[in-house]
Amino acid sequence: MPRSGAEARRRLQQAALELYRERGFDRTTTAEIAARAGVNERTFFRHFPDKREVLFDGEADLRAALTREVAAAPADLPPLAVLLRAFRKAARILEDNRPFAEPRLALIAETPALRERDLAKGAAVSEALAEALRGRGVPDRKADLAARTGWAAFHHAAQAWIDDSAPGDLAEGGSAAGGSAQGLDRHLLRAFEDLRSLAAQGR
Amino acid sequence: MPRSGAEARRRLQQAALELYRERGFDRTTTAEIAARAGVNERTFFRHFPDKREVLFDGEADLRAALTREVAAAPADLPPLAVLLRAFRKAARILEDNRPFAEPRLALIAETPALRERDLAKGAAVSEALAEALRGRGVPDRKADLAARTGWAAFHHAAQAWIDDSAPGDLAEGGSAAGGSAQGLDRHLLRAFEDLRSLAAQGR
Repeated sequence: MPRSGAEARRRLQQAALELYRERGFDRTTTAEIAARAGVNERTFFRHFPDKREVLFDGEADLRAALTREVAAAPADLPPLAVLLRAFRKAARILEDNRPFAEPRLALIAETPALRERDLAKGAAVSEALAEALRGRGVPDRKADLAARTGWAAFHHAAQAWIDDSAPGDLAEGGSAAGGSAQGLDRHLLRAFEDLRSLAAQGR
Repeated sequence: MPRSGAEARRRLQQAALELYRERGFDRTTTAEIAARAGVNERTFFRHFPDKREVLFDGEADLRAALTREVAAAPADLPPLAVLLRAFRKAARILEDNRPFAEPRLALIAETPALRERDLAKGAAVSEALAEALRGRGVPDRKADLAARTGWAAFHHAAQAWIDDSAPGDLAEGGSAAGGSAQGLDRHLLRAFEDLRSLAAQGR
């Protein structure tokens, strides 16, 4: 049995991710997740309200980290540059946690029930980013537009990052310290550069 | 009793929208919707699988119209300009149908269960737009990025359109032919112009 609450929580998340990938989200029960994590089902529900939330534990931290970075950015930085800077810092967290983050994103992409939850969480992050930009003096609607489109570019980059690592790649060098640990950062830079050129042509 | 299937369908949609606004989505039953529409509950389920889908009947048409417009755009038009052109045509449909479209969007914005469904439908539209851009020869990732950010800008414009019409405004001139019937189009043009200036600064 895991000794601390934090350790049980981490093991439940790992067990859930493994089982969802092995059998599919729909065919996995909370009892099975608890058993694999070496705890009882009551412990599962002490940590998570349902089978979906177990995969979204980091969302509140991510949102807090992003809004903090937006607030802390240099005063003269324009809105999308502020967001890119915040996303690059968040990307480092995802990259350091790649053995969990990457299969998690792949699983969400292929599971409708998880995608809906992910989209709802994402919309909340986008709103928090808009609010943080307003806090920097960015006018209301520009803040909303920058947050929505910047967040869309972040998602695009995250998807490209996953698509880049086929299952074969993962088996070969899937460790967090592997050669493509900076992959998400590269995709972010490219996405914002591409957005600039797309928008420049776009009229 | 409504005579045709199409007429029953339209009445069910109108009844659902009215009841959701009067009592809230969660406190409305399919039986109540059917009663207000003057049909029985079995008829409701012949037309819609659940309480949410009754508000998303037009999504498939919207998606088809948008991808058709993307395919039909002049060959030399760049990706975001192709999308703006398609969104402006779709906006005309929404504007013509404003007495239904506008309260519907406002209701979705304030109801979590409807928002999740709307976000999932929206993600599917975004993917269809990316695919349609690829069909025009836009490279894979640029097509994905353009579709995601363009769709985000469309949502921003739609939200601004709703925010512009306070309930008071609606009561005064809420008819489809009213003075602000072109409102969504104006917001779309402004959103894409703002995106261009944001992206130009954004590095």
